[in-house]
Amino acid sequence: MEPLDYHAEERSKASFDVEEMKIVWAGSRHAFEISGRAARLVASDPVFRKDNRTMLSRKELFKDTLRKTAHAVKRTIELNLSEEETHTLWFYVDQPAYANLHWGMFIPAIEGQGTEEQKQKWLPMAHNMQIIGCYAQTELGHGSNVQGLETTATFDPQTDEFVIHSPTLTSSKWWPGGLGKVSTHAVVYARLRTDGQDYGVHGFIVQLRSLDDHSPLPGITVGDIGMKFGSGAYNSMDNGLLRFDHVRIPRNQMLMRLSQVTREGKYVQSDVPRQLVYGTMVYVRQIIVSEASCALSRAVCIATRYSAVRRQFGSENGRPETQVINYKTQQSRLFPLLASAYAFRFVGEWMKWLYTDVSKRLQANDFSTLPEVHACAAGLKSITTSATADAIEECRKLCGGHGYLSCSGLPELFAVYIPNCTYEGDNIVMLLQVARFLMKTISRLVSGKMPVGTAAYLGRVEHLMQCHCEVQRAEDWLKHSIILEAFEARSARMSVACAESLSRFSTPEEGFGEISADLVEAAVAHCQLIIVSKFIEKLQQDIPGKGVKTQLENLCNVYALSLLHKHLGDFVSTGCITPKQGALANEQLRSLYSQVRPNAIALVDAFNHTDHYLGSVLGCYDGNVYQKLYEEAWKSPLNDTVVPDGYDEYIRPLLKQHFRTARL
Amino acid sequence: MEPLDYHAEERSKASFDVEEMKIVWAGSRHAFEISGRAARLVASDPVFRKDNRTMLSRKELFKDTLRKTAHAVKRTIELNLSEEETHTLWFYVDQPAYANLHWGMFIPAIEGQGTEEQKQKWLPMAHNMQIIGCYAQTELGHGSNVQGLETTATFDPQTDEFVIHSPTLTSSKWWPGGLGKVSTHAVVYARLRTDGQDYGVHGFIVQLRSLDDHSPLPGITVGDIGMKFGSGAYNSMDNGLLRFDHVRIPRNQMLMRLSQVTREGKYVQSDVPRQLVYGTMVYVRQIIVSEASCALSRAVCIATRYSAVRRQFGSENGRPETQVINYKTQQSRLFPLLASAYAFRFVGEWMKWLYTDVSKRLQANDFSTLPEVHACAAGLKSITTSATADAIEECRKLCGGHGYLSCSGLPELFAVYIPNCTYEGDNIVMLLQVARFLMKTISRLVSGKMPVGTAAYLGRVEHLMQCHCEVQRAEDWLKHSIILEAFEARSARMSVACAESLSRFSTPEEGFGEISADLVEAAVAHCQLIIVSKFIEKLQQDIPGKGVKTQLENLCNVYALSLLHKHLGDFVSTGCITPKQGALANEQLRSLYSQVRPNAIALVDAFNHTDHYLGSVLGCYDGNVYQKLYEEAWKSPLNDTVVPDGYDEYIRPLLKQHFRTARL
Repeated sequence: MEPLDYHAEERSKASFDVEEMKIVWAGSRHAFEISGRAARLVASDPVFRKDNRTMLSRKELFKDTLRKTAHAVKRTIELNLSEEETHTLWFYVDQPAYANLHWGMFIPAIEGQGTEEQKQKWLPMAHNMQIIGCYAQTELGHGSNVQGLETTATFDPQTDEFVIHSPTLTSSKWWPGGLGKVSTHAVVYARLRTDGQDYGVHGFIVQLRSLDDHSPLPGITVGDIGMKFGSGAYNSMDNGLLRFDHVRIPRNQMLMRLSQVTREGKYVQSDVPRQLVYGTMVYVRQIIVSEASCALSRAVCIATRYSAVRRQFGSENGRPETQVINYKTQQSRLFPLLASAYAFRFVGEWMKWLYTDVSKRLQANDFSTLPEVHACAAGLKSITTSATADAIEECRKLCGGHGYLSCSGLPELFAVYIPNCTYEGDNIVMLLQVARFLMKTISRLVSGKMPVGTAAYLGRVEHLMQCHCEVQRAEDWLKHSIILEAFEARSARMSVACAESLSRFSTPEEGFGEISADLVEAAVAHCQLIIVSKFIEKLQQDIPGKGVKTQLENLCNVYALSLLHKHLGDFVSTGCITPKQGALANEQLRSLYSQVRPNAIALVDAFNHTDHYLGSVLGCYDGNVYQKLYEEAWKSPLNDTVVPDGYDEYIRPLLKQHFRTARL
Repeated sequence: MEPLDYHAEERSKASFDVEEMKIVWAGSRHAFEISGRAARLVASDPVFRKDNRTMLSRKELFKDTLRKTAHAVKRTIELNLSEEETHTLWFYVDQPAYANLHWGMFIPAIEGQGTEEQKQKWLPMAHNMQIIGCYAQTELGHGSNVQGLETTATFDPQTDEFVIHSPTLTSSKWWPGGLGKVSTHAVVYARLRTDGQDYGVHGFIVQLRSLDDHSPLPGITVGDIGMKFGSGAYNSMDNGLLRFDHVRIPRNQMLMRLSQVTREGKYVQSDVPRQLVYGTMVYVRQIIVSEASCALSRAVCIATRYSAVRRQFGSENGRPETQVINYKTQQSRLFPLLASAYAFRFVGEWMKWLYTDVSKRLQANDFSTLPEVHACAAGLKSITTSATADAIEECRKLCGGHGYLSCSGLPELFAVYIPNCTYEGDNIVMLLQVARFLMKTISRLVSGKMPVGTAAYLGRVEHLMQCHCEVQRAEDWLKHSIILEAFEARSARMSVACAESLSRFSTPEEGFGEISADLVEAAVAHCQLIIVSKFIEKLQQDIPGKGVKTQLENLCNVYALSLLHKHLGDFVSTGCITPKQGALANEQLRSLYSQVRPNAIALVDAFNHTDHYLGSVLGCYDGNVYQKLYEEAWKSPLNDTVVPDGYDEYIRPLLKQHFRTARL
């Protein structure tokens, strides 16, 4: 028997080779195969089921996380998985857990900031998970401004120890994942005090819990910070609070690669260049951008498949209603998000190269590209995560009422995704950093300093300030050079306008504060240009597979022109394009939507998401949506009994008019 | 002892009479007093506590809802509350419950569509809650397109009964609130079949459950549809599914005010004008708009108060860091939302008048304003609810990391609010209805038919197509006449451009489908104009109280100019304003933010929300945020024990390296 496939007809309409597109999406055949294996491994293992996650109480959910984590560790050992395979497996388990922080923050912090001796002591234990660590930086009163942290680490030369202390309520560590109930250790960031001076924030390895019975050590107050957004979602994580009452640790538990405190309490900086930390930052942000494309592709896959199943209005002569994906209103909201998923995928891929490149340069003490790379990573982190968060919610809306059901997968995806906009750099703070970089770049142009990398176009600022868009017919908007110049001109003109505004204030700082909202918009324009240009660069590569490149061309144009439409005010008011050209772009966009439409299902199939990973009744591969919704409903805890708990106390007395006598 | 008030200094900075503003917000002194009493009544009653809501399991939460509902009924009887007071009490209980549908949909459906005889039979029982009803319209496969519903009601002349049946899976009733576990009855919408013909969708009163033991009657399959977005939120409601297997009801349970089926099975239309249903629609949508202002004001109140407590960066010479509300990036995101809350409040108030007016006209068989009123109500429902949903999430982001905690109140507020964008008319479908009205209005201008009410400006389309904005300096943007004309011109030009596009297609329907995304944008422009103009009209009234009117002037200008900035592309590309004028608007906006800043806390105090109603640690009146966050954290279920459940099975074996032997 043929397997049921409600999308079969849609799939047959695709005009490109889906299997080849899967390789493009995965990045390589190797990555495709690793992913596929890990995804199937997770999907076929009952311990990793997640369809009931939103129904679990907090305690049940947390225990479920502990179980899945332990099971994943066990499976990686049993199957002797490589590091890459292990990482991919964790990815598909798809449940926030303390292990993410242990592997992703605690160990890298020691690797990056520890001396050789410290690494030799701590890393083997950490790798074996004989200790479990977290990253305790953020405090109740202090987030983005790391230099404002209040926790203190005061050196006591008498005992050769640091005294870690939480002097105020707001100095309580707050948010670190894995801290609340699991971690035995933490890298704690605290103000180093020695020799009568405050040397600012440094990292210290602190044991929090007994390795015998898991109870907090003396002087340590630790706990979970409570419920977070959504059901399921990040409630699987024990984000924690932590207070220190004069907790003593040996001096050698300060992470001393970059600076040391000597036995006598002298503060000494090492000759390791501080810039090395930027390498890690680029690395982490590259992962965040890459994960943005994953989250976005899930949401888009669900909304696209469901839009092909759902029918509404337009029935004629008793024929079925129209698939909602055929409506232009649906297409104009959905297809730009589909295009964004691909755009973010490719810019994430490019950031991997960027990380390799900057790492090599740092090794060679070449710091010349660092400001540009730093701004680029901050900006891309910011705009891809903000766009993804908004897009997930938009995809939920595109699924109509049923998108509001937990079994659509979208509520939990949204809830679990949105912290990306805050952690590893608040998105607005990130854009202000980009803006600072842009203003600096522009101010240095006069002295002939040519910008590099993603800012190189600002070297052509004179041309960009006066160029005219050459579009005369809608099809002209399909030319890469025209799109690119419009985005470059828009970004350059917005930055220059900000620079001019700044010059009218008495101090640059005052001006920066006053026009910060405009600066944020200029930063967005710059970052969108980067994404558009990296998509175009991708298309200049050799891409095999029947019709694959044509599809990517369409998506690239959809991405760029939908941005242009959304930010029309920028383009027109800076004179980069005329209103008429804006209208032509819109016209071209409509025609692109018609080209994407028959390929839409195949374009989301190319993400190669398993039904387990998607976790969505609406997005299931076979499109058997209504049957699955119906079956899912009966799993509701309220359906355990026909007559609900509470009927006798609170419903029957109403119906029987017993409110005066009953104990309501 | 003085009560603690971290906002005392902020409150002292206000340059207007907050108590008078509270009256303006409430709408009248009477409404202010009723609200205040109900809010205090609810806040002081331990049964109505809701701070633990997001920690309850689904079953506990549902039982909590049943308890609160029964308690509220009991209290209204004990206190002999008026209908208005009762309504206000329910509002402050602030937990979605079956009673909302019973009172808000079931009873009004019988009132509106039932004959006198039917009303006499059913309403007394319903008012006493001897029966509890819901409104069963939406089906698994059919939402907005009511005419596509599949449930059938076939008349059987042999027995004088209707046979209610669910012929397909997709015909299952799906979503009705109160249906899943509570309702004993429902108004069921089904295709009427009699006399060998299908007469389309009509309403029928159907008993679902036994009044003795609450078990479903024969032929009825009924249950809860499962978990929904968020924790707490709408999970307090038993949204249900319902299937009929040839369920028989007496003929007189068809709601027969507008049409009847005779004993012989003849379908007869009554002479009651069908247009009367529009009155109810306007009424319901007015309530939704008014509730949008409530939800938005809660979110804005939380974000504003917290932004005055939260400090970040900018510390100099050891002084505290800067309050985040002082940053222009924060102001440019927050203050437009504050202004929107007031704008939606006033347009909601105006809609009350509109409802009264249209009701009077309908009584007098004057249907002349109906298309305009209908478009207006649909459009305002759409844009206020969409803007509010987005704004709640924006407010959450404005609270940084802590906004992600359930105790901030914002996650649940978002989750519980967003269905407003879908129910009572999907927001995009609503805008397309507005667009249809606009296109019709414009096409009729040539025949000299002058538009009325909120569309009257289109009668001046010739002027609006060629007028020039007179702004030369930033302050010129403070003139109402200039703002109004810019918004009128933008809306008129966008509508006319759409009408011109439509004329280029072979049929209007094809064109309407093709350019529907543009039509939606034109509809948005029209609706935003309505809100701006009603705010300006409000300012033309006499508003007492020191400085109150000045504040409202500022907010009105912030509302209008922030919209103008957000939709700059519309204004500039239609030539309504020049890029230079757009920049001046932006400049004026910055200066308005500075004027709002010292009054911000007082402006949200004027909403008069109790801490109970706000349900937010971040938004508490006294601003003692960090202490409360800390106390709240310890209530986490995970903090019930020091060592978490699951430690022995899933953590200890890892730490002790027992994964090979342990049963992980």
